[in-house]
This record gives sequence, structure tokens and C-alpha cells, in this order.
Amino acid sequence: MDYRTEIQIRGYHADFYGHVNNARYLEFFEEDRWARLENLIDLRKLVAKGLVFLVVNINVNYRRAVPVGETVLVGTTLEKIGNKSVALNQEIVFKETKEVAADAVVTFVIRDADGRAAVMEGDLLEEIEKLAI
Amino acid sequence: MDYRTEIQIRGYHADFYGHVNNARYLEFFEEDRWARLENLIDLRKLVAKGLVFLVVNINVNYRRAVPVGETVLVGTTLEKIGNKSVALNQEIVFKETKEVAADAVVTFVIRDADGRAAVMEGDLLEEIEKLAI
Amino acid sequence: MDYRTEIQIRGYHADFYGHVNNARYLEFFEEDRWARLENLIDLRKLVAKGLVFLVVNINVNYRRAVPVGETVLVGTTLEKIGNKSVALNQEIVFKETKEVAADAVVTFVIRDADGRAAVMEGDLLEEIEKLAI
Amino acid sequence: MDYRTEIQIRGYHADFYGHVNNARYLEFFEEDRWARLENLIDLRKLVAKGLVFLVVNINVNYRRAVPVGETVLVGTTLEKIGNKSVALNQEIVFKETKEVAADAVVTFVIRDADGRAAVMEGDLLEEIEKLAI
Repeated sequence: MDYRTEIQIRGYHADFYGHVNNARYLEFFEEDRWARLENLIDLRKLVAKGLVFLVVNINVNYRRAVPVGETVLVGTTLEKIGNKSVALNQEIVFKETKEVAADAVVTFVIRDADGRAAVMEGDLLEEIEKLAI
Repeated sequence: MDYRTEIQIRGYHADFYGHVNNARYLEFFEEDRWARLENLIDLRKLVAKGLVFLVVNINVNYRRAVPVGETVLVGTTLEKIGNKSVALNQEIVFKETKEVAADAVVTFVIRDADGRAAVMEGDLLEEIEKLAI
Repeated sequence: MDYRTEIQIRGYHADFYGHVNNARYLEFFEEDRWARLENLIDLRKLVAKGLVFLVVNINVNYRRAVPVGETVLVGTTLEKIGNKSVALNQEIVFKETKEVAADAVVTFVIRDADGRAAVMEGDLLEEIEKLAI
Repeated sequence: MDYRTEIQIRGYHADFYGHVNNARYLEFFEEDRWARLENLIDLRKLVAKGLVFLVVNINVNYRRAVPVGETVLVGTTLEKIGNKSVALNQEIVFKETKEVAADAVVTFVIRDADGRAAVMEGDLLEEIEKLAI
């Protein structure tokens, strides 16, 4: 997996138990999704057509607690392009050991100007397929 | 479903798109889990035995965007008691229409003082079964 | 002081030190500001005129750490109406003892459709003076 | 000012108004404080003596709204060492123009093992003075 985001865990990331809170992990995943999408896809071209990314499902496994002071890496790969949806595979790993702290499958649709999930075909499919690289 | 938590959506709950952010939903679910657990289970008794609740998986569907100004209700029911884990079913619904904004299955284990997932039996099972009421 | 917001401190409110994090306090203050503003002022009337509330300064004293499990109350009073700004006095107190956990003076302006701070006079002043009640 | 932290503003940093939320700014300031403290001061030496950093006041000016897509820098300088407290001056500026988005004076004490604010003298003063470099 290709890790683009590096985060040093501070006191404000952690909760009462001294570990990164469940909700905060979703921000870490979101950070890497944007870093990746912006780098590979011309988002302005999509926005100009009234197309909006919309997360419809997140299935996240919390595998190892991350204590304050640790540094983690966040990575994202393309899992699957469906007819009207796309699934990404994401991981948060400890920088040193590469042990997995959390992994998730994040599924999104691309909503068109009429509020419907766009079919993955033509130009749109071409853009999304760049995520596979 | 029994809704214990009521939240009025403010500007600081929403993100750039004017909707409640994906990560914030997890805080809403967490709020209702604690409200429910504290009410039904004697948490001090568990803590005294070195037992800690640990979320291991969240599978959340984002079904309808929640705009600022709306009021939502959060509810939790027991989905399943496994051998070493418990699954809760959670919902966030619009207060007026009861339309589902998001639902989730949240799976947790109870880690004992040795760091292992406790088996759901005896006194512990009795405590956890109170969640079914 | 008139306390409108009651918050039970959960694990996800706290940081590594087991206390409510500095940034989270600002959300508690914001919650009570909105609860109060919505109750006293016809915000839609202001928005229809292109008027927007904009916080320009927050001066917050952290007086006592709030541990997980405590319940706090948040209150807001009008401190001062200036020529082009309004200062609110806000407090977070322990529900039982009324000891102050944090207090703040929050200063905001009302930006008009041209991006300028509106002068507190006429109809606008009348609306804002309702905060004094 | 010496800027150590660089943050690209994402959708999840912003609130309903499309700007970075007031509470989130405090996380940006906290991030840079830790980055700086860890770099200059031997925190383990302080912790070993039972000494804890405790923020007692934040006075923050919100000067320019930061929209999604912008990149900001965060910097910290030593403002003043008092008898029992230290004041830091912090800034969030737009990376390109260096215009100030927000600035703050953050005052902290160092609480000793007995729960009292330590006097800035001897070894402790020597450590804190490193922040001036």
C-alpha cells in the first residue's frame, strides 16, 4: 500500500483511554482520501459538471490502539469499481513496525446534479480508474 | 427502537457541505452508547474487575444527509451476543419524520486485565443481557 | 447566570490527560450561544438581510479541569454592546458545586452583505438588546 | 515568526460557513505548540519530576476566515516568562500571502506534583528559556 499521509499522535487526538478516538480515525482516513483524490483526479472538472463525492458506507476495523507519541501512516488503494459506486481500501499503520492499527473499506457514490448516483462509465469511469494507479 | 439521545444540529457539527460530517456521526453514536450502558449496566463493577469495553468494528451506512437546523434522535438496541463479542444496532433518525439518516452495527469486546477478550458467560453475560431490555 | 446547556462529560470529550480538551470547551460555549441566540433573536430575519454573526475574539480562562463522568452547565450573558461589536460573557460550571471550570468573553460582529461590520443601531440594536434579558 | 506546522484545509476542518471552525483553530495552535516543545525541551525530564503543562488562558483573535482549499502555516514564539507562568504568541497565516488568519496569546503554568504552579527558576527556567531561541 502507498502511504501518503503521516500523522504524529498528540494529546488532543486521544481520548480518555490515552488512545486515538474512534471518530478521529475517520478524519485520518478522510485526510488521505482527499490527498489522494486531489493528486490523481481533476476534481474541478467533476464539480463543474455538478458531480459530488458522497460516502455511503464505512466499514472500519479497529485492530490495535494507537497511543500518544506514536507516528502513523495512512494509505488508500482502489478496492472495486461497481456499477454506481466505488470502494476504497484504507489502512492506518504504525510508521515503524507497519503493524495495522485500523483498516476500512469506504464506499462512495458520485451524485449528479439531479441527485442520482452516476453510472461509472465513459469520462467518469476514466477519471475514477486513475485511482487504481 | 428506543431513542435516548436528542441532538440539535448546529453549524459546528456540519462540514463544508453543510451536512453533519462522517466522523461526527460516530460521536453521536458513542454518546448514545454511553447513555445506554451507564443506565443499564453497573460499569464500576466491570472496571473494578479490570474489564474495559473496546470497539473492534463499526459498519455505518450514511443514508440521508442531515442539514444544520435539523434535530435528530439516536437509538441503540442489542443486535447479538457472540462468544467473545457483542454487536449493537444503532440508528440516527430525523426527529420529525423518523427517516433514517444513518445506521450502524457496532461490535465491541470486553478486554480483561490480561488483555484478552472475555468470554460472554456467567456474571458478565448477565450484565450484558441487560442491554436487551 | 442563566445556564441553558447541560453536558455530561464522556470519554470522547476528554483528551490524553482525562480532562476536557481546550478546543472542546469552545464547542460547549458555541452550543450555548446558539441555544440562546435562537431562543431570543429572529435569526431568519437577520439572514434575510444578509447579516452574519462573526466571532472576532475569544478570551478564555481554564480554571478547573473537568474529568470524565462530571456534568457541566453552560451559561451566557450579555457583557457589552459596542458601536460595531457585541461581547458575551460565558461560563462552564460544575453542575453540583457551581464551581467555575472555564469562563470566556466572546466578542462578535455582525457582518453585512457588503462584508462590513454593521453599526449597532435601529432594528439591529433592538434585536441584540434582547440578549440582555 | 518561525512556522513549523503546515496544514491544508480540508472539508472536515470547515463548518457550515465553509470556513475553519473556531474550535478547530485551537487544535492547529496546539499542534504547533507540541511540535515546538518536543523539539526544544526534554519533556520526559519534566514528566519524570511530576511537572505538567497546563494552559490557563487563550486569547485568540480571528482576523480572516480561512476557506477550504487554502494552506496555512502555524507559528509560535515566546512572548514572556512570568514568575509562575509563560505566555506564547501564536499565529496562523495564509501560506502564500502570509496574511494573518488568527493570532493568539496562550498562557500556561507548569503544575508540580503537589498541584501547585511551579516558580520559573533554576533548571526549569533554563528549560523554558530554550523556547526563546
